[in-house]
Amino acid sequence: MQTAKKNAKKNLRAVILNMHQYTAGKSIEEIADKYNLDPSRILKLSSNENVLGSSLKAKIAATLALEKVNIYPDVVSDELSKEIKKTHGLKNIEVVVGNGMDHIFEMLARLFLNNGDETIISIPTFSCYELVTLWAGAKPRLIPLLKNYQMDIGKILSLINKKTKMIFICSPNNPTGNLMKTEDIKKILDSTDKIVFLDEAYAEFAGKSLVKWIEKYPNLIIGRTFSKIYGLAGYRVGYAFIHKNLANYYLNSITPFVVSRPGQAAALAALDDHDFFEKTIRMVEEGKNFYYKELSKANIKHLKSDANFITLDTYPQKASLLANELLERGIIVRECSTFGKGGEYLLRISIGKREHNVKVLEVLRERSIRD
Amino acid sequence: MQTAKKNAKKNLRAVILNMHQYTAGKSIEEIADKYNLDPSRILKLSSNENVLGSSLKAKIAATLALEKVNIYPDVVSDELSKEIKKTHGLKNIEVVVGNGMDHIFEMLARLFLNNGDETIISIPTFSCYELVTLWAGAKPRLIPLLKNYQMDIGKILSLINKKTKMIFICSPNNPTGNLMKTEDIKKILDSTDKIVFLDEAYAEFAGKSLVKWIEKYPNLIIGRTFSKIYGLAGYRVGYAFIHKNLANYYLNSITPFVVSRPGQAAALAALDDHDFFEKTIRMVEEGKNFYYKELSKANIKHLKSDANFITLDTYPQKASLLANELLERGIIVRECSTFGKGGEYLLRISIGKREHNVKVLEVLRERSIRD
Repeated sequence: MQTAKKNAKKNLRAVILNMHQYTAGKSIEEIADKYNLDPSRILKLSSNENVLGSSLKAKIAATLALEKVNIYPDVVSDELSKEIKKTHGLKNIEVVVGNGMDHIFEMLARLFLNNGDETIISIPTFSCYELVTLWAGAKPRLIPLLKNYQMDIGKILSLINKKTKMIFICSPNNPTGNLMKTEDIKKILDSTDKIVFLDEAYAEFAGKSLVKWIEKYPNLIIGRTFSKIYGLAGYRVGYAFIHKNLANYYLNSITPFVVSRPGQAAALAALDDHDFFEKTIRMVEEGKNFYYKELSKANIKHLKSDANFITLDTYPQKASLLANELLERGIIVRECSTFGKGGEYLLRISIGKREHNVKVLEVLRERSIRD
Repeated sequence: MQTAKKNAKKNLRAVILNMHQYTAGKSIEEIADKYNLDPSRILKLSSNENVLGSSLKAKIAATLALEKVNIYPDVVSDELSKEIKKTHGLKNIEVVVGNGMDHIFEMLARLFLNNGDETIISIPTFSCYELVTLWAGAKPRLIPLLKNYQMDIGKILSLINKKTKMIFICSPNNPTGNLMKTEDIKKILDSTDKIVFLDEAYAEFAGKSLVKWIEKYPNLIIGRTFSKIYGLAGYRVGYAFIHKNLANYYLNSITPFVVSRPGQAAALAALDDHDFFEKTIRMVEEGKNFYYKELSKANIKHLKSDANFITLDTYPQKASLLANELLERGIIVRECSTFGKGGEYLLRISIGKREHNVKVLEVLRERSIRD
């Protein structure tokens, strides 16, 4: 059966042959090894995690949940989804919970994308929208953001056609940090009943959300996460607001038990820890103001951010050069070439505690003088 | 924009319109509510969880991991996958880790199933093979097991055609509990290079595995889980052995960060807790022997099990009748109608501690006398 042995690969779908592994922010261990640095002195500011850690209440809830960790978790995270729904109290809008927000729009691709369908994505942005499109055998139409990092709304509207099934919008956009113009989002929703997925992973930092709009636009689905403001990236809990007309289709089409039992417990408790939430908001706000002031003083080009990170515009130099210099000094930041065209000139730095930001700015200033 | 509002549903794929929510084993809370019972007195023997709980080492590791739960977990569970690989030491065979084993064969459907492709599944069995097939737009060919609960190998071989991409085999089979004949699995592998997914979720209880075969048959992929013998169902950690020629395609095509940080830590520690492993094996072995003896004495038809559950054959009565009688007494077991044709006459009971098994047998005996 030599033939049989050789041909396992021939079963692969064509689209799979061209995939590359997801590029994650680099880990502390990776950088410590590569540059021979002390791991405890490395600053990880590459994945927009919460540098304050996570809510003590959440950790306690997770620890208590270990008592029953031999038991499967709730099949669709029912209690958590009800609690989130309660905090917002919105009629006709349901909440679904996923293994990180990525998992939710991956499931939405299952609901909506057939082979040959199209999605519309403004770039540079989070690369997973493109990935879920490709995995589904659909075609992502990638539209560069305008010079002001806003959507090219004319181009987007002109591209919507019979094959279009989903339009992805990230607001505040990762990695540019800015909110997309409300009027542009409205234009899209007013002109089409295609599914609009709005990624609001960073909405808490912007203090602005379009969740209420789902009552008027049932084709709008809004994703959120516990990974950023709630400091639970290690637990993988995301959620989405979805119109009640679509919610059951979603629940009927997902893999069961995707969120761990301690993860559900931690998220539930985190929802309730307003102090931790406010403390994070304050730290990010102060950090951004500090960056704005210092970067302007040093004449370093940067973008205004509505998220928990700040993005430098390194044009005409590739951002990877600056990223490497920071890496060599034990500061992990994110050069954004994997976010699509334009990203190669963007350097994304998560807002840290005061002392972290000071350290980053020292290196940036030093370099800008040298240039 | 009234039209736009009404038509969000029209974006759904046709296959999604016919889906139903996954039927999980009933939870203690659900049954306590329904029958007005004290939750602490309810016995949950419906999901083949480990009634001994989980390894203390695993719980400690999970608690320690909370320190960094604000940080994303390793993107592909690298350390855990290397450690599992080491415990088996198999050349050319890689280990991939998923959010429960379900997640792994869901990803395999992404790798191998196009619209219109076919899979072959022997029923009654775990319903998720059929679900991932349908989600992919492919067609499951469901072949009833023979009277001895073995595969209808002639039928299976005759059904393999150009459209066939995956053959699912569950061994020990859920919910019948028996190992599939090795010679039948060999016949399939010798006759085809289609992907054969072998679900060995219960292999540790059988003390038998075909992992080594992957060296000879690169089209064989074998799934395993931390949910059963390791008692970590609440954490959702599964893994699979896969030939190195396919492993990179897998890693290139999956969602990142699917297993939580504490989940990875717990699984790593559980691997190392041989005492807990052996204690579980012993409890299940003793429990099964007790059941065999007592069921035979009481003339209650049952199947021989290589897993951590025992299955009763309730024909010609529907298993749901007996399941309900047990439920009313606070014992949750699983009637298997959702496992496909034939399952409606099977009642699956997880092996419990001695006192649990005694309690179940009391009800069964009482009922069999009444009949």
